[in-house]
Amino acid sequence: MSNLLPGAVIGILGGGQLGRMLSVAAARLGYRVHIFEPGAHPPAGDVAHMVTCAPYDDVAALTAFAQSVDVITYEFENIPTAALDLLETLRPLRPNRRALAISQDRLTEKAFLAELGLAVAPYAPVKTAADLEAAIATVGTPAILKTTRLGYDGKGQARIMSAADAPAALAAMNGADAVLEGFIDFTHEVSVIAARGLDGSVAAYDPGQNVHLAGILHTTTIPAKLTPSQRTDAVLLAARILNALDYVGVMGVELFVTPKGLIVNEIAPRVHNSGHWTQNGCAVDQFEQHIRAVAGLPLGDGSRFADVVMENLIGDDIARLPAFLAERNTAVHMYGKPDARAGRKMGHINRITGRAP
Amino acid sequence: MSNLLPGAVIGILGGGQLGRMLSVAAARLGYRVHIFEPGAHPPAGDVAHMVTCAPYDDVAALTAFAQSVDVITYEFENIPTAALDLLETLRPLRPNRRALAISQDRLTEKAFLAELGLAVAPYAPVKTAADLEAAIATVGTPAILKTTRLGYDGKGQARIMSAADAPAALAAMNGADAVLEGFIDFTHEVSVIAARGLDGSVAAYDPGQNVHLAGILHTTTIPAKLTPSQRTDAVLLAARILNALDYVGVMGVELFVTPKGLIVNEIAPRVHNSGHWTQNGCAVDQFEQHIRAVAGLPLGDGSRFADVVMENLIGDDIARLPAFLAERNTAVHMYGKPDARAGRKMGHINRITGRAP
Repeated sequence: MSNLLPGAVIGILGGGQLGRMLSVAAARLGYRVHIFEPGAHPPAGDVAHMVTCAPYDDVAALTAFAQSVDVITYEFENIPTAALDLLETLRPLRPNRRALAISQDRLTEKAFLAELGLAVAPYAPVKTAADLEAAIATVGTPAILKTTRLGYDGKGQARIMSAADAPAALAAMNGADAVLEGFIDFTHEVSVIAARGLDGSVAAYDPGQNVHLAGILHTTTIPAKLTPSQRTDAVLLAARILNALDYVGVMGVELFVTPKGLIVNEIAPRVHNSGHWTQNGCAVDQFEQHIRAVAGLPLGDGSRFADVVMENLIGDDIARLPAFLAERNTAVHMYGKPDARAGRKMGHINRITGRAP
Repeated sequence: MSNLLPGAVIGILGGGQLGRMLSVAAARLGYRVHIFEPGAHPPAGDVAHMVTCAPYDDVAALTAFAQSVDVITYEFENIPTAALDLLETLRPLRPNRRALAISQDRLTEKAFLAELGLAVAPYAPVKTAADLEAAIATVGTPAILKTTRLGYDGKGQARIMSAADAPAALAAMNGADAVLEGFIDFTHEVSVIAARGLDGSVAAYDPGQNVHLAGILHTTTIPAKLTPSQRTDAVLLAARILNALDYVGVMGVELFVTPKGLIVNEIAPRVHNSGHWTQNGCAVDQFEQHIRAVAGLPLGDGSRFADVVMENLIGDDIARLPAFLAERNTAVHMYGKPDARAGRKMGHINRITGRAP
């Protein structure tokens, strides 16, 4: 196991707000960051040592990027395969390809989780109208049809309340491969932000309870409503996923809480929106935890000293910024995006609501 | 009062670790930072939107810098007067010139504090051997001779235990104007990190207790050993200084604790090493507090949720980094300096030692 020394360069694929907050954490540990991002003026660019703005099929740019860094990580999972094929020949890629392959495809992900013995929603693959008819027969309704790839924040999804909704739902997939998932009768959603180090050690933060609005995460509340045994189950199943993938880095694991136990919704092989509360509740936040992992440093232990409510500021929400800034015990985190478009994550706040027990 | 909107640019004179941590705080509020720094590869450069590396007598560079920003602040007080004369005609300078003029000169500072009715050590100005003889007669020994300008971290100081030490002490001043200060019989040193907003509101953090080694701050411990009335006195006298100066920004006020009360040692018109603990003890740390003030935003209230011990990592101390990274509840803050020279501040740690009451 080799630790990166201060002064080493960490390459990050993606320059959005997650890359921005990872950059700050890396700087805090004495590292420099090189961002690779196709879009111009990425939010991470304001706080990174270097930025390469180039598309993912620019072999020369990818090669120069990789050769300038000591390790490569990423802030999102939908990186083109050919780019990864090239990058991983040049520098260590953490988390590894398997974690990416699994999380890039909902079907592969479900199969992986089920094989690990974890509970998932009933599901069936759908390419054609006939598949969908068969899937509805197996999975039942209500159900939700999702593209297997590239969906996020509620995009690429269609609800099927009865068989009559099938044609419209299939049309909404635009010809993409899909998976039908049965509705879960859950009381609430929680997520576990867990990390695994290069030495195989695992640390998890206390699970947070998530509320979505219009398909986008609205708030995460710490602590989540969980029984002690549910809390233990949540952390243990996250650790099981990390170990099975020989994972290095932070992962977000979304869980449905049901009367019969926890059901895994999905995993994200990266820092996660529902882990932003750790910035104001823990000595080592999820961003630093991820950098520690990919740099081969010891992990923080994940303990928290505060109860926190994280709230996303979406689009026009930033008009409320003056009120948030005037609130006691509230930390504001803006992403430096110029345009407050509808549905766009502009920032978040962490309200410290109490001291941890 | 005009608030800077997200996307505005904050100019910072000085690119050391204070400028670096100010840059991160500014980014968190959605601002961009432009650093002006004569030295190459400033620590703040890794996390700033823009850096100008130019000397303080480069009028064209200063002008371009000022014209690219919305407000100008600084991370250290010893900025050449001519540069300030130019900059303040172009953009608002916060904190103001008076705060700088007072803190740049120990004699002016003592006179200002005494005029405010605050207790300071007995002192007398010294330019010549005859002055020093007279000063020793007035102030007594032991005493300490300090250059009036440009001293920091114990530099430009000489102890006078008896009149026999006078010639060597005067020689150590290298012909610079000096001030003789009587030794104070203090039990410990504390500092108050206080802020004043553009609207005149004042907020102070809980005082920290400082321990120096070889003239350099070693640790700051929160809470400091103070009686409730001393704690109140400390905060009130800091507020008095800020109001007297019509100050905007964060100030560090160093105080000696004596059986007869608090004596002001010195003030620093900027974020202060003894305020680094706020990064892991408060929702709004001193760096964000300073940016909020100079940007015209509401101040955080300064309340803390944790007991903290801050420890500076000086020179070779960074060899202990692996142990610090492995400590529970310890946050590491590195400055990205390549060379661990003796006496150089390389980073600091904040140990969370308990929950605030």
